Amino acid sequence: MAHPFRPAPDWTVSQWFNADATPPTLATLRGRVIVLSAFQMLCPACVEHSIPQIRRIRELFSPDTVAVIGLHTVFEHHDAMTPTALQAFLHEYRISIPVGVDAPDPDGRFMPQTMRRYDLQGTPSTLLIDRAGRLRRKSLGHVPDLRLGAEIMSLVAEREDADPADPAADSEATGPHCTPPS
Amino acid sequence: MAHPFRPAPDWTVSQWFNADATPPTLATLRGRVIVLSAFQMLCPACVEHSIPQIRRIRELFSPDTVAVIGLHTVFEHHDAMTPTALQAFLHEYRISIPVGVDAPDPDGRFMPQTMRRYDLQGTPSTLLIDRAGRLRRKSLGHVPDLRLGAEIMSLVAEREDADPADPAADSEATGPHCTPPS
Amino acid sequence: MAHPFRPAPDWTVSQWFNADATPPTLATLRGRVIVLSAFQMLCPACVEHSIPQIRRIRELFSPDTVAVIGLHTVFEHHDAMTPTALQAFLHEYRISIPVGVDAPDPDGRFMPQTMRRYDLQGTPSTLLIDRAGRLRRKSLGHVPDLRLGAEIMSLVAEREDADPADPAADSEATGPHCTPPS
Amino acid sequence: MAHPFRPAPDWTVSQWFNADATPPTLATLRGRVIVLSAFQMLCPACVEHSIPQIRRIRELFSPDTVAVIGLHTVFEHHDAMTPTALQAFLHEYRISIPVGVDAPDPDGRFMPQTMRRYDLQGTPSTLLIDRAGRLRRKSLGHVPDLRLGAEIMSLVAEREDADPADPAADSEATGPHCTPPS
Repeated sequence: MAHPFRPAPDWTVSQWFNADATPPTLATLRGRVIVLSAFQMLCPACVEHSIPQIRRIRELFSPDTVAVIGLHTVFEHHDAMTPTALQAFLHEYRISIPVGVDAPDPDGRFMPQTMRRYDLQGTPSTLLIDRAGRLRRKSLGHVPDLRLGAEIMSLVAEREDADPADPAADSEATGPHCTPPS
Repeated sequence: MAHPFRPAPDWTVSQWFNADATPPTLATLRGRVIVLSAFQMLCPACVEHSIPQIRRIRELFSPDTVAVIGLHTVFEHHDAMTPTALQAFLHEYRISIPVGVDAPDPDGRFMPQTMRRYDLQGTPSTLLIDRAGRLRRKSLGHVPDLRLGAEIMSLVAEREDADPADPAADSEATGPHCTPPS
Repeated sequence: MAHPFRPAPDWTVSQWFNADATPPTLATLRGRVIVLSAFQMLCPACVEHSIPQIRRIRELFSPDTVAVIGLHTVFEHHDAMTPTALQAFLHEYRISIPVGVDAPDPDGRFMPQTMRRYDLQGTPSTLLIDRAGRLRRKSLGHVPDLRLGAEIMSLVAEREDADPADPAADSEATGPHCTPPS
Repeated sequence: MAHPFRPAPDWTVSQWFNADATPPTLATLRGRVIVLSAFQMLCPACVEHSIPQIRRIRELFSPDTVAVIGLHTVFEHHDAMTPTALQAFLHEYRISIPVGVDAPDPDGRFMPQTMRRYDLQGTPSTLLIDRAGRLRRKSLGHVPDLRLGAEIMSLVAEREDADPADPAADSEATGPHCTPPS
């Protein structure tokens, strides 16, 4: 937290679903607020809370202003939560936002690459990235709708060249979630 | 809707609960965003949705930034929803925000004075007033948390001398509510 | 608990709502299972849990088999929860089962007569009376639907001349409720 | 519906989870009421409604009286809902009742053997089998707790040699569910 302006790191995705020829990157989304939801398809709190919330966010805000992206950060049961299983899950739960499969660790560690790079502690994690590409919020567990709606709008209202006062993006876990073995 | 800057009309209250010696007015609250919840204690949608939502709003935002006020706008069952009954209701539901009793119509019409002045169509109605005292939002029925959180923060982020683009404060009813006999 | 067959005491009602010329008594309901819901209109747990549950019970079971009755057992805020206020409440909440006003104590004590006779500890209380008029269950607070459905059916399945094994009708409080000052 | 006493057909299971050396059969469960829940791990209505309900049933009734069994009836996305994936699902959702994998069709049709034998129309399906091994209830979609609690208790109260009046076990779909392609 030394820097007030920490740029969000890029994500490394091995496969996209619901994305067209040019999958979303931090560069292509510059100028929009990004809601990045890191989830696992077999994480109960993700299914009960995050997936419906992500759907509500997508319906409320304009895609030109707020980008909503899912990241499948599998850190356990790798042989159950395969891309094939994820595709069936997205179909059954009618999830239409772009969802990327967080690329497995090349050294075989259980935590995938982007999850490690963002130092996520479990799922669901909700990340907010501002219009200038800076990581502004990182929450583990469920964030109440009222708060998340306010936080997103706070970033929407901010000018791209704003100089945010509080560099702290990390926040406490606020609800049920899954964490990897330590 | 001729005027882009419609000042919110003052409220006329016959009795306050949970307020100190100087009850809240538009003048004393200038500079803060105001969430004004018009409700009736025997309106099921108010009890189920609005009261808990008002509580969540009070907990989330700083009182220095967002004022939250209740207005008991009785337009039916006047002999049941008396100030005495309201006091018991506020006690049982542990409501601690200032709540004003909308003053009865001096000519004996069923709709109380402030409700008529704001042209409210029923309860619950949620009103948002900006930091410059302008009425910016008027909703009948339940407003989802995500949307209301975003709308409040949008007004919080606005400078007091802003010139809001959209003068329309009225909005459609969005959920269960009570309406007076027409 | 000395007797295995404790007959339910009669109720003393000062005024009935939603009842025809001959209000329900234990004698007229003999042969049916009775679900008696003791509530107060300003008790939050009653409004949130018991009223909707009573509605579901009324819809599920045949009135020829299961009688569902409300009892307004006011033990606090007597000047707010008057019969006039109750009538408005029943109208707004669309409650159509017979509801009796538990008669006030003649000596001015806060607890009404039937509530005292049944030794109820607060509201909501759910009482089950079998087809032979015996009190079989007395619960303070919310009883989950699955359990209550099973308990009602257990009494429905019982023959009127059955000799129930367990005379204990009292049970622990199981959820939010209101209790009188001690 | 020709027979008033239709015996429930046996189930054909390729693999059991949470079962000991002698997996449950109709024969070994004779004398108990059986609640058989047919589900798919990627069926949203199963995850949202049936799994929590099954858990409540298991907690409420004694295992000596009511047996609760899951059957994973995969009729779509076979390569996603493998036994390996099911095992992870059962672990994450903390499901401890015996769950059998309905054996795939030997001729490669999409519907598994037991599902076809019971003529199930989709998931979740809830089956009630009485103490004499007769199929008494077959519901597609969510059955409300109050009703299901009453139905289970109705069978519990029945003597094993009872001659039930209504042979109809089929019932209408009552809530969200998944159905196979027709």
